[in-house]
Amino acid sequence: MSTYIYPPFSFSCHLNHEYRINIIDGILDSNNSSLARAINGSRALVVTTPTVYKHYGKRFIQQARMQGLNFVCEVLELKEGKKTIESVEKICELSLTHGLGRSDVLIAFGGGVCSDMVCMAASLIRRGIRHLRIPTTLIGQVDAGIGLKGGVNFQGYKNHLGCFYPPSDVFIDPGLLITLSREALSQGFAEIIKIALVCDAELFRDVQLHGSSLLYSGFSQPEEAAYSIIERATKMMLQQLGENPYENMTSERLVDMGHTFSPYLEVASEFSISHGEAVSIDMALTSLISVELGLLSEHDAYVIINLLSDLGLPIWSPLMTRELCDSAINGMILHRRGELNLVVLEAIGYPQFVKKPYEIKCGLLDRALSRLALLDESPI
Amino acid sequence: MSTYIYPPFSFSCHLNHEYRINIIDGILDSNNSSLARAINGSRALVVTTPTVYKHYGKRFIQQARMQGLNFVCEVLELKEGKKTIESVEKICELSLTHGLGRSDVLIAFGGGVCSDMVCMAASLIRRGIRHLRIPTTLIGQVDAGIGLKGGVNFQGYKNHLGCFYPPSDVFIDPGLLITLSREALSQGFAEIIKIALVCDAELFRDVQLHGSSLLYSGFSQPEEAAYSIIERATKMMLQQLGENPYENMTSERLVDMGHTFSPYLEVASEFSISHGEAVSIDMALTSLISVELGLLSEHDAYVIINLLSDLGLPIWSPLMTRELCDSAINGMILHRRGELNLVVLEAIGYPQFVKKPYEIKCGLLDRALSRLALLDESPI
Repeated sequence: MSTYIYPPFSFSCHLNHEYRINIIDGILDSNNSSLARAINGSRALVVTTPTVYKHYGKRFIQQARMQGLNFVCEVLELKEGKKTIESVEKICELSLTHGLGRSDVLIAFGGGVCSDMVCMAASLIRRGIRHLRIPTTLIGQVDAGIGLKGGVNFQGYKNHLGCFYPPSDVFIDPGLLITLSREALSQGFAEIIKIALVCDAELFRDVQLHGSSLLYSGFSQPEEAAYSIIERATKMMLQQLGENPYENMTSERLVDMGHTFSPYLEVASEFSISHGEAVSIDMALTSLISVELGLLSEHDAYVIINLLSDLGLPIWSPLMTRELCDSAINGMILHRRGELNLVVLEAIGYPQFVKKPYEIKCGLLDRALSRLALLDESPI
Repeated sequence: MSTYIYPPFSFSCHLNHEYRINIIDGILDSNNSSLARAINGSRALVVTTPTVYKHYGKRFIQQARMQGLNFVCEVLELKEGKKTIESVEKICELSLTHGLGRSDVLIAFGGGVCSDMVCMAASLIRRGIRHLRIPTTLIGQVDAGIGLKGGVNFQGYKNHLGCFYPPSDVFIDPGLLITLSREALSQGFAEIIKIALVCDAELFRDVQLHGSSLLYSGFSQPEEAAYSIIERATKMMLQQLGENPYENMTSERLVDMGHTFSPYLEVASEFSISHGEAVSIDMALTSLISVELGLLSEHDAYVIINLLSDLGLPIWSPLMTRELCDSAINGMILHRRGELNLVVLEAIGYPQFVKKPYEIKCGLLDRALSRLALLDESPI
């Protein structure tokens, strides 16, 4: 050993970030300057999808020109099946083509897949440039578009590569939801029900009261409920994220409710089952697991499953096999740092963690799966 | 406008990270448990290069087995020309093949390119897993391997995609440098001289005194100087990084000395000019620019240029044209948020920023380039 021994020294680095969530009516109105203020003179690359462009492209471009924004708009096919690193590279390439510098900005104008990929591209370009999000789907407005996560699917694993990279602003305009399909709205309800189940029984009741009306009115009627449900779901989600935004404090995350089996189901279906649908099936199964564990009442489980069904969501799929569940459990243990941390329920709004897989005793999962399959055949 | 107006609300996220720099003799000795302690029972994927594997693979594997580490070792061709997103994907793929979970760890056992790519892979896998670094080159030990940056070249731009993602531990063993080629050691000296020029005249004198001896002894003689120069360069570098680790506070970075023209030169040479060589040429040019600006004495400029030459570094290349310099200046303005922020010198250890390109008056750059070309033909 050398005689030149140096004590190890430490290096500390701190990153503080704050961003605004703006729930706003008429983000595309010509007298609305919120977006221009947020962009603040930078050059912007707007990334959007064919559907969003069809509905809102013209209005967006008109308004942005009137406000004198320095922007370009690119329309890309961003779908779950194309949520790949290659698509992220495409966005990075476009940022070069359009000469974006380090103080410039990406704008995700689309659903959850769009914001996931724009977020990841923004995190990579020049080791990080700003990005704004204008989620155009319900799932984007209450879940995918408001947090820190970007990501892509990789080698058959959902969101296996990604980043924690906060946006600089999020604009949530419930008015944009009027053009959404019923299926797309249903997906958003799955995430609203998720957050309600783990921390807000009152939100659950609001969804029971107004969900159908909102579903059949493009999330416009009753208007007060549209806004209050979105505001409440968003705030609750961020409250949950706020305790552990980089997921480095704990692997116990209440917002993982409905997100244990669902990623594997999405992949097994080759994304023909959408994210929201898979989350719904996962929550239905989790409700019955909670019953089998002796935690949740049968009554409450049925209330949850009925609400999911009423809002157009599936509660079962033939792909939801015992084998798939076992793969998911093993995969999640690797991902949740050695713990299963399945979020189950004692009651609506009252969650609990199943930390270890052996707590789900032999036969329990099979019983829950069989009951769910039966329920699917003959609804309550 | 809707009657349902909600005030915007803010979301704050803080990330704190601390890591250790261990300057250590004999990291591969069988009685050295530092690495095992850092890995702390996790599964490890060691990523290394053919050259490092040839020299140290067997010892590493023996020692790791004796310590009971749960690890696999993968040898990849990681060169500047292959510093691509595809190579990062390859590392991510291997982490799946070897079943790495979220609490597992990547180990970069190689030079700067290796640690840049392992860092980027670690930041992406499951949105971030731990990584350790054992830099095996001088440039890795004093520069590339100790900071937060990972990255890859993209579309002809050096490190255009990347991340700020701190390691969990860095092990610097100057003993590993004994197998390095003289060219590789020279490259490391370029970065040591860089940090000396911007903040440590005493380090510069140490390099003047001991550089040649270290260069011709595989950085082993005099041993005390080997350790003290590495320790000093490392600490100075981290002191500089510490003020602005995520580069979000300011675009004035003293450690950008030698890094304005060099990335463009590397790319123009298709990486036949190495990073350290390009940095050396950039610093030689910058010294003459400093003279032309009336800041630096001719004497000091020659002292710098002579030291670079003495340590086997080039000071000019025919690729270093006016056009290349103009591209670099324009590129850097985009990257440094609208400012040029060229680091120039008043004296060795006393830097200054040229903020705007117009401060480099017409003809000045041409004169500096011509003088450098002449110096290259007929050394002082």
